[in-house]
Amino acid sequence: MIDEALKQKLIAFRRERDWEQFHTPKDVAISLSIEAAELLEWFQWRRDEEVTEMLTGKKREALEDEIADVAVYLTYLCHDLDVDLAAAVERKMHKNAAKYPKDRVKGRSDKYNEYS
Amino acid sequence: MIDEALKQKLIAFRRERDWEQFHTPKDVAISLSIEAAELLEWFQWRRDEEVTEMLTGKKREALEDEIADVAVYLTYLCHDLDVDLAAAVERKMHKNAAKYPKDRVKGRSDKYNEYS
Amino acid sequence: MIDEALKQKLIAFRRERDWEQFHTPKDVAISLSIEAAELLEWFQWRRDEEVTEMLTGKKREALEDEIADVAVYLTYLCHDLDVDLAAAVERKMHKNAAKYPKDRVKGRSDKYNEYS
Amino acid sequence: MIDEALKQKLIAFRRERDWEQFHTPKDVAISLSIEAAELLEWFQWRRDEEVTEMLTGKKREALEDEIADVAVYLTYLCHDLDVDLAAAVERKMHKNAAKYPKDRVKGRSDKYNEYS
Repeated sequence: MIDEALKQKLIAFRRERDWEQFHTPKDVAISLSIEAAELLEWFQWRRDEEVTEMLTGKKREALEDEIADVAVYLTYLCHDLDVDLAAAVERKMHKNAAKYPKDRVKGRSDKYNEYS
Repeated sequence: MIDEALKQKLIAFRRERDWEQFHTPKDVAISLSIEAAELLEWFQWRRDEEVTEMLTGKKREALEDEIADVAVYLTYLCHDLDVDLAAAVERKMHKNAAKYPKDRVKGRSDKYNEYS
Repeated sequence: MIDEALKQKLIAFRRERDWEQFHTPKDVAISLSIEAAELLEWFQWRRDEEVTEMLTGKKREALEDEIADVAVYLTYLCHDLDVDLAAAVERKMHKNAAKYPKDRVKGRSDKYNEYS
Repeated sequence: MIDEALKQKLIAFRRERDWEQFHTPKDVAISLSIEAAELLEWFQWRRDEEVTEMLTGKKREALEDEIADVAVYLTYLCHDLDVDLAAAVERKMHKNAAKYPKDRVKGRSDKYNEYS
């Protein structure tokens, strides 16, 4: 995914433009949410087969750009709040494993609907 | 951030519960958007100094959990759509560098407001 | 929908609690976005027939509560920014009518996908 | 806000274009969420005084257009799910009044932070 070297490139990109001053954690969280909505926009009104079509056509790069935007703001937020993302994901996965033991929830959508 | 080994653990977590069947790209994109909103909720109504206070207190783990949720769905989406996230971010960063040359936009909020 | 009398009740509810001080337009716009995501959460992972089932069952009131929350923040935002919502909707509908003439777009999803 | 006559105009607008077929409740809820994010985008990176400036300038109409879009999808969703929005808002307001009695929460941001 995004390794330390790429993360440092993103931090440098922002610093070279002197844009850290605009990046309060609250505003970065707003941006992350907006970019996630822009990504979702690509799936709006589309049925599964239309999504597949989109993924193999010329719109794919635009979709990947939106995914990149989400990842960029997520990276900035983790950097600015000093969050170790891998550690946070590991810990959350363990919580989820305890809450949704595989033997009890396997393939059950009713359990999955509760999952959040 | 999230390396290949952690990504594989996330994929295994989902497979062991037979939950891929619920993960259409559209639904995963919806989830990503919802998790980004839940993350934003932690910043809602809070001024900058209240955000700082939150980050050093007992709410920090809950906030990190929300960041983790965003990262997890982002990882699933990249996996399911076969997106090379690092490559997508590199390409987007190059586009942004061309659009916002550092000499012309440095420290200017009017230029930054146009940035998206 | 929401008439002037109900709007005034909502304004009074907020004033009696001295909560206008927390309602900057930016924070109200954040809340509106978060409530829209919470509403969307009810549709997450559900197929059309599961949505129908939800609407006739005991979850209906919870879903209506989320719709109400969106409407409440929309009402506050219009009040605080002095926006005449009916006039704004009329104007937007005329713009959309010019952009999407009914003879040219009728029933066409390709046109509808462009609609925003 | 939006009265019955305007609601009927919006329903007619959609029917004349034969667009109800694209409007599953899930997709309308997605649209509502996306439009709320587009509205939020106007407040992104802006401090309170920049928001005020925007509201008195030429960007005001664009902002009002986004507010209108949120209202339009909210209206469609209420129509399609047969939700009486005024009744839903009244009921939710009574729930909130019971949960946040004005004597105990007046002007307290700690109570307000719990409000959702």
